[in-house]
Amino acid sequence: MPLVKIYVTLKKDILDVQGATILRALNSLGYDNVDDVKIGKYILVDIDSRDDCREEVKKICDQLLTNPIIEDYTFEVSE
Amino acid sequence: MPLVKIYVTLKKDILDVQGATILRALNSLGYDNVDDVKIGKYILVDIDSRDDCREEVKKICDQLLTNPIIEDYTFEVSE
Repeated sequence: MPLVKIYVTLKKDILDVQGATILRALNSLGYDNVDDVKIGKYILVDIDSRDDCREEVKKICDQLLTNPIIEDYTFEVSE
Repeated sequence: MPLVKIYVTLKKDILDVQGATILRALNSLGYDNVDDVKIGKYILVDIDSRDDCREEVKKICDQLLTNPIIEDYTFEVSE
């Protein structure tokens, strides 16, 4: 059964408030060499499909899992 | 400059409420062949380091980025 790993990130021009906060925290903890932090979502989906499920995964991402106005995504399908 | 990709997931026995909700939504939208959904975090960190930064990344994950009681993580370092 294919396991789909989906990586969702904010689009480049969208302010990542959570990432900025963690960056400040890391810098203040002494990790001065950390230059940037971005927070996204990592979604694991089990799909019961013998055929290629890429089209279905795209639909699921566009329809429910991501907000296409502010987010980008990539995914990979592993058996 | 190394880019570190960190994948944070809930430990196996921790209830993933968000994932269960999305699974129900997908099934009710007609995606009956989706059997499981797990939601985790995908964190991208830019570290200014010429040496191996794996030890530092582990410290950062344990100290700030994850909750070791309920979460597992893996990471990969790419240049």
